[in-house]
Amino acid sequence: MARVGLRGYYEAVSEDSNPLSARDSAPPEKLWGGRFGQTTSPIVDAYTSSLAVDRRIALEDVRGSIAHARMLATQGIIPASEAEEIMAGLLQVREEIEQGRFEMNEQLEDVHMNIEARLTQIIGAAAGRLHTARSRNDQVVTDLKLWMKEAIAESIASLHDMQIALVELASENRRVVLPGYTHLQRAQPVLLSHHLLAYFEMLERDIGRMADCYARADVLPLGSGALAGVPYDIDREAVARELEFGAISANSIDAVADRDFVVEYLAACSIAMMHISRLAEDIVLWSTAEFGFVELPDSFATGSSIMPQKKNPDVLELARGRSGKVYGTLVALLTTLKGLPLAYNRDLQEDKEPLFAAHDTLNGTLNILADLVSQLRFRADRSRRLAGGFLLATDVADYLTKKGMPFREAHNVVGRLVRYCESNRKELRQLTLEEYRQHSELFEADVLLIDVWSSLRSRDVPGGTAPRRVSQALRRARVILRRREEEG
Amino acid sequence: MARVGLRGYYEAVSEDSNPLSARDSAPPEKLWGGRFGQTTSPIVDAYTSSLAVDRRIALEDVRGSIAHARMLATQGIIPASEAEEIMAGLLQVREEIEQGRFEMNEQLEDVHMNIEARLTQIIGAAAGRLHTARSRNDQVVTDLKLWMKEAIAESIASLHDMQIALVELASENRRVVLPGYTHLQRAQPVLLSHHLLAYFEMLERDIGRMADCYARADVLPLGSGALAGVPYDIDREAVARELEFGAISANSIDAVADRDFVVEYLAACSIAMMHISRLAEDIVLWSTAEFGFVELPDSFATGSSIMPQKKNPDVLELARGRSGKVYGTLVALLTTLKGLPLAYNRDLQEDKEPLFAAHDTLNGTLNILADLVSQLRFRADRSRRLAGGFLLATDVADYLTKKGMPFREAHNVVGRLVRYCESNRKELRQLTLEEYRQHSELFEADVLLIDVWSSLRSRDVPGGTAPRRVSQALRRARVILRRREEEG
Amino acid sequence: MARVGLRGYYEAVSEDSNPLSARDSAPPEKLWGGRFGQTTSPIVDAYTSSLAVDRRIALEDVRGSIAHARMLATQGIIPASEAEEIMAGLLQVREEIEQGRFEMNEQLEDVHMNIEARLTQIIGAAAGRLHTARSRNDQVVTDLKLWMKEAIAESIASLHDMQIALVELASENRRVVLPGYTHLQRAQPVLLSHHLLAYFEMLERDIGRMADCYARADVLPLGSGALAGVPYDIDREAVARELEFGAISANSIDAVADRDFVVEYLAACSIAMMHISRLAEDIVLWSTAEFGFVELPDSFATGSSIMPQKKNPDVLELARGRSGKVYGTLVALLTTLKGLPLAYNRDLQEDKEPLFAAHDTLNGTLNILADLVSQLRFRADRSRRLAGGFLLATDVADYLTKKGMPFREAHNVVGRLVRYCESNRKELRQLTLEEYRQHSELFEADVLLIDVWSSLRSRDVPGGTAPRRVSQALRRARVILRRREEEG
Amino acid sequence: MARVGLRGYYEAVSEDSNPLSARDSAPPEKLWGGRFGQTTSPIVDAYTSSLAVDRRIALEDVRGSIAHARMLATQGIIPASEAEEIMAGLLQVREEIEQGRFEMNEQLEDVHMNIEARLTQIIGAAAGRLHTARSRNDQVVTDLKLWMKEAIAESIASLHDMQIALVELASENRRVVLPGYTHLQRAQPVLLSHHLLAYFEMLERDIGRMADCYARADVLPLGSGALAGVPYDIDREAVARELEFGAISANSIDAVADRDFVVEYLAACSIAMMHISRLAEDIVLWSTAEFGFVELPDSFATGSSIMPQKKNPDVLELARGRSGKVYGTLVALLTTLKGLPLAYNRDLQEDKEPLFAAHDTLNGTLNILADLVSQLRFRADRSRRLAGGFLLATDVADYLTKKGMPFREAHNVVGRLVRYCESNRKELRQLTLEEYRQHSELFEADVLLIDVWSSLRSRDVPGGTAPRRVSQALRRARVILRRREEEG
Repeated sequence: MARVGLRGYYEAVSEDSNPLSARDSAPPEKLWGGRFGQTTSPIVDAYTSSLAVDRRIALEDVRGSIAHARMLATQGIIPASEAEEIMAGLLQVREEIEQGRFEMNEQLEDVHMNIEARLTQIIGAAAGRLHTARSRNDQVVTDLKLWMKEAIAESIASLHDMQIALVELASENRRVVLPGYTHLQRAQPVLLSHHLLAYFEMLERDIGRMADCYARADVLPLGSGALAGVPYDIDREAVARELEFGAISANSIDAVADRDFVVEYLAACSIAMMHISRLAEDIVLWSTAEFGFVELPDSFATGSSIMPQKKNPDVLELARGRSGKVYGTLVALLTTLKGLPLAYNRDLQEDKEPLFAAHDTLNGTLNILADLVSQLRFRADRSRRLAGGFLLATDVADYLTKKGMPFREAHNVVGRLVRYCESNRKELRQLTLEEYRQHSELFEADVLLIDVWSSLRSRDVPGGTAPRRVSQALRRARVILRRREEEG
Repeated sequence: MARVGLRGYYEAVSEDSNPLSARDSAPPEKLWGGRFGQTTSPIVDAYTSSLAVDRRIALEDVRGSIAHARMLATQGIIPASEAEEIMAGLLQVREEIEQGRFEMNEQLEDVHMNIEARLTQIIGAAAGRLHTARSRNDQVVTDLKLWMKEAIAESIASLHDMQIALVELASENRRVVLPGYTHLQRAQPVLLSHHLLAYFEMLERDIGRMADCYARADVLPLGSGALAGVPYDIDREAVARELEFGAISANSIDAVADRDFVVEYLAACSIAMMHISRLAEDIVLWSTAEFGFVELPDSFATGSSIMPQKKNPDVLELARGRSGKVYGTLVALLTTLKGLPLAYNRDLQEDKEPLFAAHDTLNGTLNILADLVSQLRFRADRSRRLAGGFLLATDVADYLTKKGMPFREAHNVVGRLVRYCESNRKELRQLTLEEYRQHSELFEADVLLIDVWSSLRSRDVPGGTAPRRVSQALRRARVILRRREEEG
Repeated sequence: MARVGLRGYYEAVSEDSNPLSARDSAPPEKLWGGRFGQTTSPIVDAYTSSLAVDRRIALEDVRGSIAHARMLATQGIIPASEAEEIMAGLLQVREEIEQGRFEMNEQLEDVHMNIEARLTQIIGAAAGRLHTARSRNDQVVTDLKLWMKEAIAESIASLHDMQIALVELASENRRVVLPGYTHLQRAQPVLLSHHLLAYFEMLERDIGRMADCYARADVLPLGSGALAGVPYDIDREAVARELEFGAISANSIDAVADRDFVVEYLAACSIAMMHISRLAEDIVLWSTAEFGFVELPDSFATGSSIMPQKKNPDVLELARGRSGKVYGTLVALLTTLKGLPLAYNRDLQEDKEPLFAAHDTLNGTLNILADLVSQLRFRADRSRRLAGGFLLATDVADYLTKKGMPFREAHNVVGRLVRYCESNRKELRQLTLEEYRQHSELFEADVLLIDVWSSLRSRDVPGGTAPRRVSQALRRARVILRRREEEG
Repeated sequence: MARVGLRGYYEAVSEDSNPLSARDSAPPEKLWGGRFGQTTSPIVDAYTSSLAVDRRIALEDVRGSIAHARMLATQGIIPASEAEEIMAGLLQVREEIEQGRFEMNEQLEDVHMNIEARLTQIIGAAAGRLHTARSRNDQVVTDLKLWMKEAIAESIASLHDMQIALVELASENRRVVLPGYTHLQRAQPVLLSHHLLAYFEMLERDIGRMADCYARADVLPLGSGALAGVPYDIDREAVARELEFGAISANSIDAVADRDFVVEYLAACSIAMMHISRLAEDIVLWSTAEFGFVELPDSFATGSSIMPQKKNPDVLELARGRSGKVYGTLVALLTTLKGLPLAYNRDLQEDKEPLFAAHDTLNGTLNILADLVSQLRFRADRSRRLAGGFLLATDVADYLTKKGMPFREAHNVVGRLVRYCESNRKELRQLTLEEYRQHSELFEADVLLIDVWSSLRSRDVPGGTAPRRVSQALRRARVILRRREEEG
């Protein structure tokens, strides 16, 4: 093993070797510093700071604070004039954040403290009244829920857009036939549109899960204080109205300790990414030379650094591979929450990073796949050709069944027919009626009419691949999309 | 390293050394055997068989088959008389299963084939008509959904019962005060009832997730065939009605390839187990000698094989530890589904084992905890004593705030007051008014009235720990429980 | 939602509705019962019992107890005569276990207590001396390590056998050429043997991980007592020698609280299953009609219940899908261990189920795949045909590079050449020298000699696919296998 | 549900609504662009770019390229003069990177392409020769292994430093007695040093796992080309020597497709974080008011925004909570790799983010905990007081055993003795000899001598908590540390 470069223990244990342990003079005062005889170490600040992550909820924090301040004034808990100052100051902070001018200081722990500190710079001591009747515990979870509600809405919009892309693609390719696969072996002919609409269904359930998650998250925690509620005559309903929450939390301990809204969202994202990984796998397979059903647009493929002929489906591979990242976020937060006593523990700070990662990955992936899907070009001749042959064997068995033979027997007869074909290097459609009848007397001339289109048309049940059913399904899908847009 | 006992490759590579490779003569015929020149190897039968697991859906399989047969007859697809035979035969099979007399044969692959084989023994060739217009692909997912819908209902009932136990315990202990904790440091006084109702809220969300999962799973796949639909004039709605499904699936490919209803249930179970792990942690802590808030009943504790004085909270530890098992099932199925092309792949067989494991673990855990919780005895004196002291510091700060001091300043004043107390080995309530006033002129005689109960009463906001709010919350909880029972 | 069947709370809350709460009279006495005023509830026995799982370490428990008893006698801690009785009794118990005659009683908690109870039946009160100087805490982890050491040896043997199967297959198919893939797009020709040996390498690392895990697990915990060591003059080294442990544990608290040997094994199993999932995916792809490189033996494929033509690679799909199960075990135990305080907690009981599941899945999968792989038949003509064409483009670029053109420029030239071919529907080998020279003057007649075999031969670097390198690699692989068998 | 803000599909589907699609004209040319008729879309560049992550291996990339160029020249594959130019240019690039002056362009895909593009700017066309005889596939995995080997060395150093901190703390507190816990119930007295050394053992195994992982990763992939090896007479051993790899890879396909070295490292990190989560839990418990064994230094604790009295163990909570993050990385990569066909797929790009995250989290956590641990101050009086009482019950049982009573009987006698004490509100040491003798005649006056120190001293077995054993263990720990530093 190469030199490990252990810091010498016996030779020289020097604290100075750690650059982080060099303690700067005069850090900014902590807002909770009154009780402490010693300031926190800079490496503690670095390790515990959530700024790198929670700066992303800065606007939500401002929004929540404005609603809080307004309510405090309305209830007479703080003077109206000071509330005005606070709100004006917060609006200025918001502007600074939006314009990218807001500078955060790592030593102020988190985004909340940074904003309060800036507010103090702007308006002075009145800023100290903002934290009346709240705690960071209920503040941060309020901010996070504000952020997540928006995030869910975006995820739904992205899933919806992906559905649109699938429906469009299905509409444009209504005559394209694919061999349908089970066990990745050719099974029965299906319409490409039918296959694509399977993903429509999956994404529809994903949207349902997102909406359910939204409804459960749509509960305002603010007013729960550190864990026990607050000793002021606050108006939680008014804050909920301003912040557009559907309800207020019913238990203050639960409100500050609960993060299952995030876990539920991560689970919904994981399932959606699982669906995407399957879609990506399908298209990767279809775009191989061996399957050859689809051509990726050049603008969505990448080349090789050494193989000039290559055209690689990198976007799809990454989409597939990133399912891992999202699964990982789910495991991460479930692990962090496991076995935590009530109420708030600092471990909960680890909620934001997986949340942001899952959200960005899911939405980014959906957005690019919606684009990619809409540019796929199918090689209908090839897939149509491969959809015939032995894929019609079930149709032959069903033919016999309809002539009165029990299905199990029919299945056996056709099994032998297939072996006969293989021995004689024939396809089913190359058999003569005589050869058919050698296997069963029930065969008559109309067995020769079985082909890919008769097979497709015969699956004429709700949810089946018969062209008229698929057309109905496309119409239904459009109705669902339109309705959501109208309600949106 | 000790001898690894490698099977000798160069010395003697003998197939016979593997007992599994000894091929028995005359296995039972496979129902799909017609096309094959060779029977499957017994080790293949053993590896691919799902019997050990899917025997648990045997009754659901019979139920689904009866509905299918009835519909086939009604639609004129099979003769009514044969349908009668089939249904009578299936009822006999059901009885055999219920009475534990049904013997399954590993070589028949799965529970479906075992049931069909037994049916054939009972009624002869007519049994061969049962598999008309369906495939194992839509059959197995139908069975599984029938099972899971029942399982969800049981999970909801178990969560509900656990809620009852919590509400009862909270009702019986309405005057018990606890130190509330954040960061496992004493923070502010709370009512035990309030703490317990936090878990009521978590379980309420768990029930919501279960119900949402149920609604999404409540869609009949039967009629989807292998993947493309079936070429018979079946009546899927009739089957759905008989099997009490709320809807029929809209896409046959999705119907056979989808397992996200299982993943969603596993996610809901995981979140519920996470909640339980937190409750278990809380009670484990409370039952330590150090906290000493609660005594476990002897019947729920176990002893040590060598330490005679021990009384261990094993049930709670196992409840906490088994969160791992349930998380594992979620990861297992998400992994299995990752990157699978459509439609059905045999990998999907791996859905049942995690499902059964998660369900049994969650329900078993809830059931025993409901019992355990209802027998907890609290040592109210002790927890009441620990809920005072510095836990009232926030109240003192809020006192100042109400006198007009900005909260941040008040926080600082009280921080110094706490350090003063620590230096002088005093508690807050031991301070004289003079000492108070040395820290701020705003203090007046009424500051001496701050105590645990004034603190509790002051958290008089919706969701707060004030006794009257907790009483309201208990009433609300009972209303929720009663309403669910009435609707159940 | 269908009727949930909530147990009525308001209507009738009856304990009797729970069959488990019917408490039987007169359960067997617990061995730690002295301190307790009440026996444990039967539902507690059921929930906490580990018998269903830990019966699997019964023989290890007996083995450990014999070694312990012998040492106690040698050290004069218990009388030699009683030790003889104990050991004779334990040998009888062992025989009963081996012959399947040992009946376990759920109410005796675990396998250890069952064995001690049976020993008491056989030899009477002397059995009570066996537990001198040990605790269940060090006993169970000793048993588990004994089991796991054997399990690792078996895993290594199974990995080794799988390597043999791969090497044999590679040897028998040394002239089979495959298109090598990157991004599942054809990239460069490779030898099938070379591809198969890639898995040899992966499994070799798996064996290394197993061996490392073995070495770390090979440390005897017995003698650690409940957590602090024991107050007897025991000889831990003697016990280690008898039980064939390489060392004794250095810290008693760690010894009873540690389960990372299990986690490490689960991680090694997970990585191995990941490798298997990739191999399974490869063969599933190769056995599609589209790739068509390999034919599965009938005895390793299964048919469809409705599609008579199907021949499905179920074994491979299950092997791939079961990676999920093994990953799940890893997550399960990591979760269980997270945040547990020292020393022993009952949560640790949850170590065995994931361990057994992972071991059985890995070994079962390797064993069947070794069989399957050895019966694969390759369609060399087809794969050879697909390995030409544009897969030789890199060779053409390298041709130019060797003539002095910088690689980046050569890559560009050949990129244009490929586009030229595509526009003119030609393959590279159909180009005339003139056409080549239109793209670069550096091309000379020898460019027309580039073919699959020249391409293969040219990759003549260590680890490359040139036939002579692959032959060397096969020899090296055999040496590794032989050496392990000799050392085994 | 609040407005979801769906992008209107029927109303107006405008591509412009996606800001990412409005992109600049004239992107830089891709190095593989020759074959493509269309440039990649900017959103594709954004989605597939790995720059945000792989910029971290920039120095490793330069280092690898220098070794590669030198070898190419030595072997006569490229002209020596151009190799000199390349190496000089690369040194300049390295300097730019080290000085933070190197600007990367997102549209150049990855760090490799950025470096090659910059090299081209510096030295012109000769840069095009650098990529001779290699591919990004073998290049990136070489870079990553160079990075990871360093990372492992750092992890080992951090684990080692943490061990030092534990050993120092254990040495300074050799007389501190704790109640030892099982099931979080007081069990037997132990020395704090003994408890701390349990963590020394865990970390020692962690180091072992890291070292084993290092050895398996220490294999050079460069020279494997895209997947098949390269058609040049390269000298892989020379490159391995320059880059300080212990060996060269034996199979080119495996070399580019393998990422299990990363998974193994992530597993090792996960186990280490699990250990840390347990240590953090222990100290969090000890620092509660209820346990009260330890005081955190002010510089390592944080305050509350509203509760002036709070002193929170945030660092420990985050350390515990971040186990989730690391577990998540392990699941992420295992998922990504599941079911991937050989050889290279773009999914593999997802290896770096989890690797960097796990490494940073583990090392950052170890570093701060080493600091924190070294500043802990124990309240020895309190823990000593709690270590007596019923914790001596096992000692009383062992007393009887040594007098000849079988252990099981002794356990029962003492169990009754404990119940007697509880009924009479006494501790064991308050019993008179008479009371003892009422429970067994074997008790004699020396039973009254049993106390915490006699208990500790009696655990005088290897690995036990007897003070002289713990002193030995401390010496052994120092030897291990010293030896590693000498070998390091």
